[in-house]
Amino acid sequence: MILVLKKSATDKEAQHIVQLAREWGFKVNLSRGVERTVIGLIGDERELRDKPLDVLPGVETVLAVLKPYKLAASEGCPEGTRIVLPPVKKGGRTVVIGGPELCIMAGPCSIEGREMLLDLARLVKQSGAHLLRAGAFKPRTSPYAFQGLGNEGLRLLAEARATVGIHVITEVMDVRDLDAVAAVADVLQVGARNVQNFTLLKEIGKLRKPVMIKRGLASTIEELLMSAEYVMSGGNHEVLLCERGIRTFEPMTRNTLDLAAVPVLQRETHLPVIVDPSHGTGHWDLVAPMARAAVAAGADGIMVEIHPRPEEAMSDGSQALLPKTYVRMMKEIGRVARVLGRKV
Amino acid sequence: MILVLKKSATDKEAQHIVQLAREWGFKVNLSRGVERTVIGLIGDERELRDKPLDVLPGVETVLAVLKPYKLAASEGCPEGTRIVLPPVKKGGRTVVIGGPELCIMAGPCSIEGREMLLDLARLVKQSGAHLLRAGAFKPRTSPYAFQGLGNEGLRLLAEARATVGIHVITEVMDVRDLDAVAAVADVLQVGARNVQNFTLLKEIGKLRKPVMIKRGLASTIEELLMSAEYVMSGGNHEVLLCERGIRTFEPMTRNTLDLAAVPVLQRETHLPVIVDPSHGTGHWDLVAPMARAAVAAGADGIMVEIHPRPEEAMSDGSQALLPKTYVRMMKEIGRVARVLGRKV
Amino acid sequence: MILVLKKSATDKEAQHIVQLAREWGFKVNLSRGVERTVIGLIGDERELRDKPLDVLPGVETVLAVLKPYKLAASEGCPEGTRIVLPPVKKGGRTVVIGGPELCIMAGPCSIEGREMLLDLARLVKQSGAHLLRAGAFKPRTSPYAFQGLGNEGLRLLAEARATVGIHVITEVMDVRDLDAVAAVADVLQVGARNVQNFTLLKEIGKLRKPVMIKRGLASTIEELLMSAEYVMSGGNHEVLLCERGIRTFEPMTRNTLDLAAVPVLQRETHLPVIVDPSHGTGHWDLVAPMARAAVAAGADGIMVEIHPRPEEAMSDGSQALLPKTYVRMMKEIGRVARVLGRKV
Amino acid sequence: MILVLKKSATDKEAQHIVQLAREWGFKVNLSRGVERTVIGLIGDERELRDKPLDVLPGVETVLAVLKPYKLAASEGCPEGTRIVLPPVKKGGRTVVIGGPELCIMAGPCSIEGREMLLDLARLVKQSGAHLLRAGAFKPRTSPYAFQGLGNEGLRLLAEARATVGIHVITEVMDVRDLDAVAAVADVLQVGARNVQNFTLLKEIGKLRKPVMIKRGLASTIEELLMSAEYVMSGGNHEVLLCERGIRTFEPMTRNTLDLAAVPVLQRETHLPVIVDPSHGTGHWDLVAPMARAAVAAGADGIMVEIHPRPEEAMSDGSQALLPKTYVRMMKEIGRVARVLGRKV
Repeated sequence: MILVLKKSATDKEAQHIVQLAREWGFKVNLSRGVERTVIGLIGDERELRDKPLDVLPGVETVLAVLKPYKLAASEGCPEGTRIVLPPVKKGGRTVVIGGPELCIMAGPCSIEGREMLLDLARLVKQSGAHLLRAGAFKPRTSPYAFQGLGNEGLRLLAEARATVGIHVITEVMDVRDLDAVAAVADVLQVGARNVQNFTLLKEIGKLRKPVMIKRGLASTIEELLMSAEYVMSGGNHEVLLCERGIRTFEPMTRNTLDLAAVPVLQRETHLPVIVDPSHGTGHWDLVAPMARAAVAAGADGIMVEIHPRPEEAMSDGSQALLPKTYVRMMKEIGRVARVLGRKV
Repeated sequence: MILVLKKSATDKEAQHIVQLAREWGFKVNLSRGVERTVIGLIGDERELRDKPLDVLPGVETVLAVLKPYKLAASEGCPEGTRIVLPPVKKGGRTVVIGGPELCIMAGPCSIEGREMLLDLARLVKQSGAHLLRAGAFKPRTSPYAFQGLGNEGLRLLAEARATVGIHVITEVMDVRDLDAVAAVADVLQVGARNVQNFTLLKEIGKLRKPVMIKRGLASTIEELLMSAEYVMSGGNHEVLLCERGIRTFEPMTRNTLDLAAVPVLQRETHLPVIVDPSHGTGHWDLVAPMARAAVAAGADGIMVEIHPRPEEAMSDGSQALLPKTYVRMMKEIGRVARVLGRKV
Repeated sequence: MILVLKKSATDKEAQHIVQLAREWGFKVNLSRGVERTVIGLIGDERELRDKPLDVLPGVETVLAVLKPYKLAASEGCPEGTRIVLPPVKKGGRTVVIGGPELCIMAGPCSIEGREMLLDLARLVKQSGAHLLRAGAFKPRTSPYAFQGLGNEGLRLLAEARATVGIHVITEVMDVRDLDAVAAVADVLQVGARNVQNFTLLKEIGKLRKPVMIKRGLASTIEELLMSAEYVMSGGNHEVLLCERGIRTFEPMTRNTLDLAAVPVLQRETHLPVIVDPSHGTGHWDLVAPMARAAVAAGADGIMVEIHPRPEEAMSDGSQALLPKTYVRMMKEIGRVARVLGRKV
Repeated sequence: MILVLKKSATDKEAQHIVQLAREWGFKVNLSRGVERTVIGLIGDERELRDKPLDVLPGVETVLAVLKPYKLAASEGCPEGTRIVLPPVKKGGRTVVIGGPELCIMAGPCSIEGREMLLDLARLVKQSGAHLLRAGAFKPRTSPYAFQGLGNEGLRLLAEARATVGIHVITEVMDVRDLDAVAAVADVLQVGARNVQNFTLLKEIGKLRKPVMIKRGLASTIEELLMSAEYVMSGGNHEVLLCERGIRTFEPMTRNTLDLAAVPVLQRETHLPVIVDPSHGTGHWDLVAPMARAAVAAGADGIMVEIHPRPEEAMSDGSQALLPKTYVRMMKEIGRVARVLGRKV
């Protein structure tokens, strides 16, 4: 940690800081510059993160040397994390997330009924995608909107998983539902609104089940990594990160998909990075271009929403792909992946 | 709801929409303009909010006529909601939030220990403030940071409440803690990170206990009102709203305190509006100016953090006021309130 | 234009609005709904844009039916605008921007000297790119920073253009430099900071010279189109639009590159869309992934910065590609373009 | 300047940086910490601002010790700048901006005609305000909107100034209009869209005429100060800064008025700080609350728009105060100012 002192800081103030730092067990490097005195504190900086060093008399600015994430940082696993999902049934496919093969997650926003879910599960599997996404518990801005089928939805999801033989990812919003969701899902999803629901993250940290954490509308990349750190510090190291758009001033899209987060995350962390262009844009006609772009940017996977009749969807119909559009998109991203040395 | 059709929309597409709307039980007003055809759907618009009307063939734009909040809207209670906290003990003070008297909430960010809490509770009471704020459960960005004293903190808070005779507000983060927190708190607090934790909001809706909902870092004013609507639609109508800063590109403050939200909310809703300049700015030296500004803007109350030794605070020390600065601020806001026809 | 009246609006207020609208030459469609009365004004909405209809007594909300841009709107030129740059010298290449072939613009941020510029111009040409970019006039946040070589830079640029035989694009910041810049440049550039320098846009509207307008840090897509409209309404229809990142709360990148703006613009306008991943990210290691992503999203071209020794660059060295990295990027985007039916 | 090296940085890389720094004339302080090596460069940091130190091999992060503004920084004039406007005519009032008396600027958005301007000038003077604001040159998002009366407007403004005997402030958008505007205006205004029109700022730096620079929609506080620095480094030290709202995701207000910028600027700079709640909110009913809040936050002045018939205003009618609302607001801010030790 580096403290820049005010021009007006006195020797006494500087000495007080030096003494304090030594009491805390830090070595000190004091450097008098032309306009400012700078004090470097040498030791485990993370112990100082909590301390409000900026209120110490004489201090102008506090500069951190290290990133606040440890377990999620690239240094810890330079070869990159691979998350392995064992086959759904004997002889089925093993899915590896984070390797050369992209991981495609597709399905309806909400589980709306048995037939529809089974049909889409089959479509998703046939298209070559890896996971069926479908929400049983739905976070909705309005209390008057459809809130998901809940446990009945989970039951249908389990049936689709078993019948079709496809891995599933679904959102968990409530710590009290965690066991029920974990019993069905191959990958848990923490939604954008729960990215800093630390209660939920801590409980997931106790499980041994992969989890995908979606970036919040106001999350910095660093905060997203700190949310992953919550889960990892609990012992659960199988974390995927998902860029799904941040909130900006632009009204023509639902969110602003921050695709540069993909290469930034790949520099900063060893965790796989998924992109969700459905929520990232909010409009079905923008989904395929942004899915292609995400793959071109180097994402480890894509999550998209599909619906057989978007105009009748019970949630987020505006951003749902028709099955035929989805299939065309799959071909396009496959071609892009291949020329960049990956495959779908 | 109003649908603007594309210039290229056909008669058949327009007729399809008209027919659909009638099937849904809406009257239809079709108006052919110079460049666009416009279809108005007359009926209970809120039933249409969930429908992805923008994906209907021929539709260019969908314009909503009504605000999505009902119970929170001004129309429902034009005289404004007043929340009454009965005395802590016999003969004690009744606190009314939302009336001519401002409501001041002050105290430490976290409960750090018994002595400190009791001392601050006394100071807060003597200064004329109405509620002691103090966190037992702390949402922290880092899993390595102090997470609050938890139930032990609640116990200390109950003791301070009883001993000093002051109402208390404290945050609840986890549905499983709700009973324990509600047993101690006069007002529950839902923090900025949980503003769209719909699980928590629904459970609070079942209680009959006042709750203050803090605006999220990425919450629009409309979304904040929808979070209040979640609680109110459950039957709990005693909701306070708190502006505490939104996330913008400006790095010199922790958040950007959106004080115009105060008069906007007072136009849109009958619920009382509190401002938190401590989180809203993140720096102690900006707290008093922004507290004065909040009162001048017409806020119904203020929430601030104080600490006897900010440099030793276990959380958010940078934004804590020293007791003497706090007392000076109280005098200033009292003077501002009085010349604007209110009192502290 | 559609006016939604307040619930409390009186008949008299509604009648006043109807009368006013008729005086302005509009037909009126009045529709009484369950909760609100809605008045549609039928006529040339653009005449109403300037009127503060929301302050009319009884009005709650004003909803626009039409987009405010006319000449830039897709409807005006559904087949898309192609901008043709005639050969620099006899027998040279004709460049077409907006057709199936991508347009690549590359070069140093600033013109720093003769040798360096000529070397890079040759590299850019050899790599298959179409325009040399290089700044003579540099908008810099600090008055103490290098401000560009000015007219001497223009002279060097003209020399590089003639010697190497490559088209050039360069920024104009000052109306007084317009003639000098237009005498050298094949395409003028209006920088992000000047996107609403209406004085400059109007003057460029009088020229018959292609211009690329960069989106401002706080420009909505609609505002960017309105800036194009300024130029086009002056008679100059050869406008390119450039997405180069907007300002958000994320500090790990210099700006947030809004790639979804590419398909949105392609839906909204017939003008070609270029992406600048150098300014869009601010870090050289993010440029190639974002260039690939831009091409995959469907951009009509790419603008990137290169420098032989970035650590010695006089401006924006952090985001400059080394020549070898640039050449590798060119190959990658060529491959992506080809599998999506375009070419470089 | 402080360079934090990567964990993987070699001794050779560190030595290369040390050597380079010495060649540039800097002393070096190298400190090996537990996880990172840190190199401090001691000397005039501003010489390094331009250098892309982050691309040097082995460098992870670059941390600046000093703020980039010099002339605008508080240190240079701890007692605060006062700008004195000599009387408009003999025996008239001297206006001092930046002292204990607030400076109120009021008037129409645009100059629309002679009568209206003279009437408002008289009203503004009678109300006790200090400057008449009124635009002759108007930056408008649409080329089809009213663009101001231009030179005819300036002539009317000069007449109002002389007839009524009131100081005037008006915007300059074009360097070619600078002499004409400076001949009439007591204070020049640089609008939000021109905050980084460095050409214009440089020319104004050559004048000896006060100028008020409005914060841009995407300007950080630091960038606003750098724009002031442009003017001051040219020799013109009479600069006022104006907070007028920044662009955020919140749609219920035109901009988000960042009132915390007032105390931040007062800590960072010696220049007076004005607040414009008209543009800052965009709605007339929010102007008075925000004007009161600005005064309570410590602003040195207020700029507001008024119009006798807002519904007929040729620009920004939605945010214009009626004369009677304006007069009421003046009384309120007078009362707030007085209890905080200032006067109007």
